[in-house]
Amino acid sequence: MREWEKNVRKVVPYVPGEQPKNRNIIKLNTNENPYPPSPKVEEALRKMNTDAIRRYPDPAAERLVNAIAAQHGVSPKQVFPGVGSDDVLAMAFLTFFNSEKPVLFPDITYSFYDVWADLFRIPYECMPLNESLEIVKEDYYRENGGVIFPNPNAPTGVLIPLSEVEDIISHNRGVIVMVDEAYIDFGGVSAVSLLDRYENLLIIRTFSKSRSMAGMRIGYAIGSEELIRCLNDVKYSFNSYTMNEAAICLGEAAASDREYFEMTRSKIIQTRERSKKELATLGFVFPDSCANFIFAKHEKVPAKELFEALKKEGIYVRYFAKPRIDNYLRITIGTDEEMDALFDFLRRYLKNR
Amino acid sequence: MREWEKNVRKVVPYVPGEQPKNRNIIKLNTNENPYPPSPKVEEALRKMNTDAIRRYPDPAAERLVNAIAAQHGVSPKQVFPGVGSDDVLAMAFLTFFNSEKPVLFPDITYSFYDVWADLFRIPYECMPLNESLEIVKEDYYRENGGVIFPNPNAPTGVLIPLSEVEDIISHNRGVIVMVDEAYIDFGGVSAVSLLDRYENLLIIRTFSKSRSMAGMRIGYAIGSEELIRCLNDVKYSFNSYTMNEAAICLGEAAASDREYFEMTRSKIIQTRERSKKELATLGFVFPDSCANFIFAKHEKVPAKELFEALKKEGIYVRYFAKPRIDNYLRITIGTDEEMDALFDFLRRYLKNR
Repeated sequence: MREWEKNVRKVVPYVPGEQPKNRNIIKLNTNENPYPPSPKVEEALRKMNTDAIRRYPDPAAERLVNAIAAQHGVSPKQVFPGVGSDDVLAMAFLTFFNSEKPVLFPDITYSFYDVWADLFRIPYECMPLNESLEIVKEDYYRENGGVIFPNPNAPTGVLIPLSEVEDIISHNRGVIVMVDEAYIDFGGVSAVSLLDRYENLLIIRTFSKSRSMAGMRIGYAIGSEELIRCLNDVKYSFNSYTMNEAAICLGEAAASDREYFEMTRSKIIQTRERSKKELATLGFVFPDSCANFIFAKHEKVPAKELFEALKKEGIYVRYFAKPRIDNYLRITIGTDEEMDALFDFLRRYLKNR
Repeated sequence: MREWEKNVRKVVPYVPGEQPKNRNIIKLNTNENPYPPSPKVEEALRKMNTDAIRRYPDPAAERLVNAIAAQHGVSPKQVFPGVGSDDVLAMAFLTFFNSEKPVLFPDITYSFYDVWADLFRIPYECMPLNESLEIVKEDYYRENGGVIFPNPNAPTGVLIPLSEVEDIISHNRGVIVMVDEAYIDFGGVSAVSLLDRYENLLIIRTFSKSRSMAGMRIGYAIGSEELIRCLNDVKYSFNSYTMNEAAICLGEAAASDREYFEMTRSKIIQTRERSKKELATLGFVFPDSCANFIFAKHEKVPAKELFEALKKEGIYVRYFAKPRIDNYLRITIGTDEEMDALFDFLRRYLKNR
């Protein structure tokens, strides 16, 4: 070992879902939207002023923040933007989870919560989902340093009703409760309506799923003005300019187009509901999903085998080799044509096996 | 104090250089390039495929990395990209500065080094510049946990020759030495030629200054394959997708246009050399600058007074109310016309005072 290596940070690198260069595959592995972004995004891109690029971007990303605030009917002072929801979540962990008591989140959930907790040396405890892969709200009533969970949860797709979200928040008024709503637009009721009553609620959202803009890296938090001020103070204290001009410009355009948003998300919901029937017919079981993916296992065939057979066929889905979920596939909802190709293959494969 | 506030991170927010919305001002306060990005950037923007935006970007930003590597004549495995050099620097601190011994950097230098050190709980010691505002290389020969300095230094603009950079590196082979070359294209010799001999050297660069792309947030590190692998491991461990599609696409275009780059940087160097003469005639003194700014104090008039008079006139320069440098102005090199407006005003102001 070379001497300098002693001071290198030790990490377990994350393996992201494959992003194959071959464009002929059917990509149902990273929960992207199968439809392109709003035509208004295209328009904004064509109009973008490259001379503006020579200057630093607006650190507050005001145009984007205003468009997001208008979309949710909140004040721009209640919106904090970031480079994807990962950036927003990491900043929120750093800002609000500074207790000696453990932060609580589900054992099966978004895989970066424990990573950021470790990074910032935040103690945490994982609350097991029940046998039906549901969050048990009472688990979050004990003493803690903060709470975070996705709703719907990932990778299960299971939603808890707004009344249960409120129960968890109201039992935790002395800490920050973060609700990660990356997938809420695909069938859940947002906690935004609770913001007036709970100053300790922080909602995290992304443009990567329902806005078809994973490639632009735009996420945001919505909360009370007090919480957003804390986030901004921490952010400005060590990195002022994170949102580039293109993200601000195209994000503003996307947020302003409600009609296109409603159209594409209802198309995805329809395809998902049809997919549930097809998968059930094929012998899959799964918790009911309110997200743009289905977390399914087959009654007879191991998930890993199916994952590999599908991949060979050029159909990519997600498989997690982790305790409790290593017999499941997470299948992103694509277009109707993409899903039909998946079902056709599965039908043939399961019959000939 | 509300209960949740007890767990909020305490910070001193950074105040970035003003980004006034009024476009009629002369903006010489944040070291932006007065010339627009390469016409190839405009072309790339017009050709950008918005459908690609719906997918996650390439986490390795391969196209951008390849273009940067070609520009420097190094392997793509020696390049690590990030959201501006701030992101790259923060990641490098987190990855390499994990010793109990203090990291060393100058007392007057880029204002974020101590911020990231505090954020990641890295011990550090500041080495005072000498009376001429120069780095004293022998200060960096003592035992330490790593070394970082900008060359040319900021906000002084003072360059140290490559031989002294090498002296510092060769005295510190057991730790990582980072050379922050944000301003090197304006007259310095890069340490890139030392990479073959020193595995512990990490060079940090940005597209914000000499590439006229502050608005796109693109920075990168160049180093040995070993160091770049360490950076990637840490980065992927907690945030895989940071460079958005637009940054990858426009950055690639900019990096590929050497001709335009050479033209604009030599224009800035010419304007700077003329500005030195004008400022000297007006009674300013300053260390010789190799950057796209001049760090100057007036023989008779306090910097703060000049800063405020200039601002009233719509000419923004940078003033730091900090020990040892609170009588200096940092003046970014603009176009010849912008500099003439500055000199005209100063001539009148100093005469009528």
